[in-house]
Amino acid sequence: MKKYAFGVDIGGTTVKIGLFETNGQLVEKWEIPTRKEDNGSQILPDIAASLAGKLSGRGISKDEVEGIGIDVPGPILQDEIVNKCVNLGWGVLNVAAEVKKLTGIDEVKVANDANAAALGEMWKGGGESHKNVVMVTLGTGVGGGIILNGKILPGNFGAAGEIGHMTMNLDEDQACGCGKKGHLEQYASATGIARRAKEVLAASDKPSKLREIENPDAKAVFDAAKEGDELALEIVDFVGRTLGLALATISCVVDPEVYVIGGGVSKAGEILTDAVKKYFVKYAFHASEGTEFALAELGNDAGMYGAVKMVIKD
Amino acid sequence: MKKYAFGVDIGGTTVKIGLFETNGQLVEKWEIPTRKEDNGSQILPDIAASLAGKLSGRGISKDEVEGIGIDVPGPILQDEIVNKCVNLGWGVLNVAAEVKKLTGIDEVKVANDANAAALGEMWKGGGESHKNVVMVTLGTGVGGGIILNGKILPGNFGAAGEIGHMTMNLDEDQACGCGKKGHLEQYASATGIARRAKEVLAASDKPSKLREIENPDAKAVFDAAKEGDELALEIVDFVGRTLGLALATISCVVDPEVYVIGGGVSKAGEILTDAVKKYFVKYAFHASEGTEFALAELGNDAGMYGAVKMVIKD
Repeated sequence: MKKYAFGVDIGGTTVKIGLFETNGQLVEKWEIPTRKEDNGSQILPDIAASLAGKLSGRGISKDEVEGIGIDVPGPILQDEIVNKCVNLGWGVLNVAAEVKKLTGIDEVKVANDANAAALGEMWKGGGESHKNVVMVTLGTGVGGGIILNGKILPGNFGAAGEIGHMTMNLDEDQACGCGKKGHLEQYASATGIARRAKEVLAASDKPSKLREIENPDAKAVFDAAKEGDELALEIVDFVGRTLGLALATISCVVDPEVYVIGGGVSKAGEILTDAVKKYFVKYAFHASEGTEFALAELGNDAGMYGAVKMVIKD
Repeated sequence: MKKYAFGVDIGGTTVKIGLFETNGQLVEKWEIPTRKEDNGSQILPDIAASLAGKLSGRGISKDEVEGIGIDVPGPILQDEIVNKCVNLGWGVLNVAAEVKKLTGIDEVKVANDANAAALGEMWKGGGESHKNVVMVTLGTGVGGGIILNGKILPGNFGAAGEIGHMTMNLDEDQACGCGKKGHLEQYASATGIARRAKEVLAASDKPSKLREIENPDAKAVFDAAKEGDELALEIVDFVGRTLGLALATISCVVDPEVYVIGGGVSKAGEILTDAVKKYFVKYAFHASEGTEFALAELGNDAGMYGAVKMVIKD
């Protein structure tokens, strides 16, 4: 294998790029802005120029580069093609072919960002030493990634690991971002937790520290729960039950070794994982009750690590 | 590849054995009884004797046998080890090692029976021409198998594809066979459908053909529904909703190309798959709405076909 590889994590506002040695060592990471004007047509040329500049600056020939792994906030087909990415202004686009043309580097693989983050966490983060990992990212929404035998499971329609859109509640009257109703994302995301707090506060007369805060967010809820606030603890219990049930269901499908929980909400730490584990064990098929739980460790770098891992062989 | 291979499907009462050519052609199939006495210690020697007899009867040398694939009604670890199989009287048993010793044939692979059936249906049945298949077997219980990239997904605890134990209803007061409550198996199995019929008939005064039958079973329900019986149609709708929701959830995890529906209940045919599809589309993440549905085609031979496929390369 050649000495270097790039991991490129394309987000809605910045592109994070890492130059790695193929032994897994990060050499340098940097960011460039994501230019979304003109339907995002400048994004890939900007990346190619940045990679070329880095190589020439360091005196590295492109023949020393094993490949480029890229992740994108959209569904990916055949490790190559983005099937519409509203965030970037892209329609159907063969990202791998474009980047090959722009860089002259032939090994280019593309993944969905949540899937890449899962692979990164398996490789260098909370799922290290495992090969079968499910990652759940609890942010503004709920993302997920399924890693089996050390590889991303993309799914036939690029929708494997879209666990934020598992239907958890047939009686929900509000719509998920995707348009359907009662999805996991509506309950376990930062947004969902804040919504729940608002509902619980309105429906009850119990005293709560949360009443002192205007529009308490997920962090406020977990902070109050850690101080023993009863209403906040009820909300955490509800989040734990919903997420524990969802993960127990996932174990009946892919039965992973470990769940890695990441995203902003996961900063709550053990109070969250304890609540999830309690209900996971309650609802899981008995054989899977011993599945491990870990917190994500790579933060915003997970996607970049996972992206480069796609082009680095073991 | 050598010319022959065996597929062995070990059930609670009989062992089905197939002699195949490795081009996929079935040469002959036969059965022997499953002798469960003495903790099932005779089962593997009986199979080895039957294989040896068949080879000598046909003048085939064991050097012409590529391998033996075996499936068992229990959880399997590392394609080799049965992790307790109550039905056969087995504890933890390295079936692959035993069979290698007994037969002198070195390539032996072992799978769970529902997983083997899924692989068989992918290879020669309802999932033919696909590589990413989820099979659901609706019999006395509900079994499942997940095939990704043409291979069985066994799961870390041998529990991948245990979709009968997905929790669908947190308010259920009766226990599933596994001891927990509200599992898919309690609603979509033949037993579950008969139970639902009993409950619906007791809770309603509506006239129904089902009232003329003592303890109507799943077949009676589907037959009456096909004749337009209103209560029977309600039950079919309920089964379709429950199963459609479960499969929509599975698509958020592994996003397969096709669902293959088998087992005794699937003999109901299109009235069942139509009801399932209706709710699948309602609950699925939009990207997966076009997932295909097919009925199983191999019946009781599916396990034997899947078993042999494990030792036949493409």
